[in-house]
Amino acid sequence: MEWTTKKRYLPYNKWDAETLFDLQAQADQSQFQLHYHIRPSSGLLNDPNGFSYFNGAWHVFYQQYPFGPVHGLKSWHHMKSADLVHWEDMGLTVKPDTQFDSHGAYSGSATVINDKLFLMYTGNVRDQNWVRHSYQNGAWMDQNGHIKKLARPLIEAPNHVTEHFRDPQILKHGDKYYAILGAQDKETETGKVAIFSSSDLTGKWNDLGYINFTDKDMGYMIECPNLVFVDDQPVLIFCPQGLDKKITPYENIYPNMYVAGSKFKFDAGKMTTTQAAPINLDDGFDVYATQAFNAPDGKVYAISWVGLPDVEYPTDNENWANCLSQVKELSLKNGRLIQRPVAAMGTLRQAGHLIRTAKVIDGRQVVESHAGQQYELKITIARNQNGTLHLAGTHAVDHSLQLNFNTGKDAFFEIDRSKAGQTFNKKYGMTRKICLPENQALDLDVFVDHSLAEVFINNGEHVMTLRYFADQKNDKIALTGKNSLNYYGTFWNLADM
Amino acid sequence: MEWTTKKRYLPYNKWDAETLFDLQAQADQSQFQLHYHIRPSSGLLNDPNGFSYFNGAWHVFYQQYPFGPVHGLKSWHHMKSADLVHWEDMGLTVKPDTQFDSHGAYSGSATVINDKLFLMYTGNVRDQNWVRHSYQNGAWMDQNGHIKKLARPLIEAPNHVTEHFRDPQILKHGDKYYAILGAQDKETETGKVAIFSSSDLTGKWNDLGYINFTDKDMGYMIECPNLVFVDDQPVLIFCPQGLDKKITPYENIYPNMYVAGSKFKFDAGKMTTTQAAPINLDDGFDVYATQAFNAPDGKVYAISWVGLPDVEYPTDNENWANCLSQVKELSLKNGRLIQRPVAAMGTLRQAGHLIRTAKVIDGRQVVESHAGQQYELKITIARNQNGTLHLAGTHAVDHSLQLNFNTGKDAFFEIDRSKAGQTFNKKYGMTRKICLPENQALDLDVFVDHSLAEVFINNGEHVMTLRYFADQKNDKIALTGKNSLNYYGTFWNLADM
Repeated sequence: MEWTTKKRYLPYNKWDAETLFDLQAQADQSQFQLHYHIRPSSGLLNDPNGFSYFNGAWHVFYQQYPFGPVHGLKSWHHMKSADLVHWEDMGLTVKPDTQFDSHGAYSGSATVINDKLFLMYTGNVRDQNWVRHSYQNGAWMDQNGHIKKLARPLIEAPNHVTEHFRDPQILKHGDKYYAILGAQDKETETGKVAIFSSSDLTGKWNDLGYINFTDKDMGYMIECPNLVFVDDQPVLIFCPQGLDKKITPYENIYPNMYVAGSKFKFDAGKMTTTQAAPINLDDGFDVYATQAFNAPDGKVYAISWVGLPDVEYPTDNENWANCLSQVKELSLKNGRLIQRPVAAMGTLRQAGHLIRTAKVIDGRQVVESHAGQQYELKITIARNQNGTLHLAGTHAVDHSLQLNFNTGKDAFFEIDRSKAGQTFNKKYGMTRKICLPENQALDLDVFVDHSLAEVFINNGEHVMTLRYFADQKNDKIALTGKNSLNYYGTFWNLADM
Repeated sequence: MEWTTKKRYLPYNKWDAETLFDLQAQADQSQFQLHYHIRPSSGLLNDPNGFSYFNGAWHVFYQQYPFGPVHGLKSWHHMKSADLVHWEDMGLTVKPDTQFDSHGAYSGSATVINDKLFLMYTGNVRDQNWVRHSYQNGAWMDQNGHIKKLARPLIEAPNHVTEHFRDPQILKHGDKYYAILGAQDKETETGKVAIFSSSDLTGKWNDLGYINFTDKDMGYMIECPNLVFVDDQPVLIFCPQGLDKKITPYENIYPNMYVAGSKFKFDAGKMTTTQAAPINLDDGFDVYATQAFNAPDGKVYAISWVGLPDVEYPTDNENWANCLSQVKELSLKNGRLIQRPVAAMGTLRQAGHLIRTAKVIDGRQVVESHAGQQYELKITIARNQNGTLHLAGTHAVDHSLQLNFNTGKDAFFEIDRSKAGQTFNKKYGMTRKICLPENQALDLDVFVDHSLAEVFINNGEHVMTLRYFADQKNDKIALTGKNSLNYYGTFWNLADM
């Protein structure tokens, strides 16, 4: 099937319901389908949107193109949760049905105002000449989940940006509302984070220019900026496109990064930071468009798109693509973000059992002969060890998702997905590697969900997230190395969400 | 919207996807929506189909008309479970897409044959003159959930039945396959259960006539016959339509009944029973089309449509209707079916707490001030008590779902839904009542799921199932009576499935 532009932007009412049933059933029945992560009901999922707490429940929406694994006419698909782990499908809610979002209800955010949830999002519009116009729109969601859009956009693109102007995050500070947006500066064609303010939300929005958070060139575009306050310190999470790898090395096609600072002056758009360069938020292969917010319980939560723009995945053949990460709780330690699973992830655990150093048989130490495809593995590898933790392994673990480690001198941790089933996106490398403190034990908290692995390293000092597409029969966990390896930990099968 | 015949039978590919998204979101967002029962993804749900254990999981399908709360062009919607409680949506699978099921893939059953699940179902076909033709079709489902239909029907209606000939249950016995079907005899226009046999499944099916299980007239039609063996005793569950109430009293528009016997001779179609008349399977308002099967774990499980033909429900206004019951484990005691929740229902329980006799304040004993809308209440009411257990009550419990009881002389248990929110289906009465043994404590195990109550009485000797549509804010549980009432038990909030 060829995805022409015309086809990708065909209105939903020109698609027939039987096609949609088939797409939904195909996604439902996929062997690679996620079982405790948010995944598209059909078609393509990208950015998380409107992550919030409202009316006694957590809410997140995902960008969805429902008719195939491509970026077509997008909507917001609403998910609701009591605990940030078990998500309930509330259906496709914000649809591209007005003149200000005719070519997509693109990404945005949400904030509670009185007894409603206020959504602010980018309306994507193409004119007759297929020139893009970006409107920043508003909508109210009531307690029954019904959406009422404002008649007029809140913000139109100012003269100093190109048509790349999107992904508003709405924030209340003092008695004013602020919106920060990803933008491309027209004069320099560089990526910026724009900031606007309004005293009455639906009236005038004042252009405050760009946020001053770095003196470096952030590439040609910044997407999905998110400002949160962690222990009262501002942290700006964003996705620079075209960032010079000499500023901060990265391997993914586009990185998701952050800058932590000490002060943020809203009206001046000034973030004080001593950080020399942005830091990679995730050290794996597939995280992008992370959205975070300050929750009313005093914590800061983040959720990521597991997927990247301009990358093809093996499930494209099944007409669906991508998922969201689990929710991560953010904290700061020495100016760096710590990301940890939320406590309620423990509710997915089925009866667990302890694991510990096993005998080497046929060159490997078997941790789990049959781990299944939904589990959490917490494992501590002693210092001064050198080997490989194999996940999704064949019997002989000659094929597996390989987690290589050295906990001695020149310590490192590396994920190699080159032997984990179907290979994809090879152009950007099959391994991701981080350096570790030397001669220290390595703590891993690994979550596997069929075709997704999320690896939390040393209590959240690093997270490495990735998709892989191995035969679902391959479910051995084992360790290999030159010598017998010392480790201990716990293994739990995890329930569906 | 007027549901003309033409509209109800419009092919799915003539409906547009946007309409389907809206219907799905409307069902998802309903305040009355079920949270731990199988419910339609949109539109109308009716009979459970193909209840089975295959490829390491439980399977059930539901009859669905996806475009509204009416009986239109039906399909099978597939659900899968590891534990008979947490069901995963596998999508719309058996669709009306051949010349032998063009007007509906109607009800049927499933049995495992080698490494596939074999489905046998009624293909509903209307000819140019809108005359109904019923074909009994076969289809294979592989381990990935993909359906392959046989090219030709297995059974065409024999001469001795009218066009009302449907709902095949396929069974293996000895080295032959048997199918039992609901039928209307042509000559007498009475309800019958037909039986056929085949030695090779896809070849010739032999007409063995009708099952001889009663000498009484079973009304004008029998639907959904199900034969199971409980402790090796045959039990025939079925839905007689037009049954004379002098044979077995019932109040619903159509009842769901059973006959228990001592022997079943397949080839003779003869069931030996000493039971004088069929017995109501459920003593509530809304159970129909129960499907049961002998599972490989040695147990017998049943699941029911909670809904009735020709009845309107308040959610019709929200464009969706009905649900399935929880799975019930069947056993026999003194020739009567005992129905109990399956053990895994316990996995839904959140932290529970004991309840016991409380002080009368303002004329009521409060059991739970705020029970929410998803809970299990196990309560034992002492003997010689006379009063009302109120569920879904307002503060003063002047509006509530009322469970009236007398555990003294002339003991009874009665459910009155006349003051439980929106009233509906009044024509068939607002109360259902059963007699109880005198001067004995009454054990109730009550499951509430927003708009559904399933009440198991005296350890499954009776089940009373009903829908009700009260304001979701009304969630008080209290007891009222002339005097203070003695009771004890446990209350658990229940998680989403």
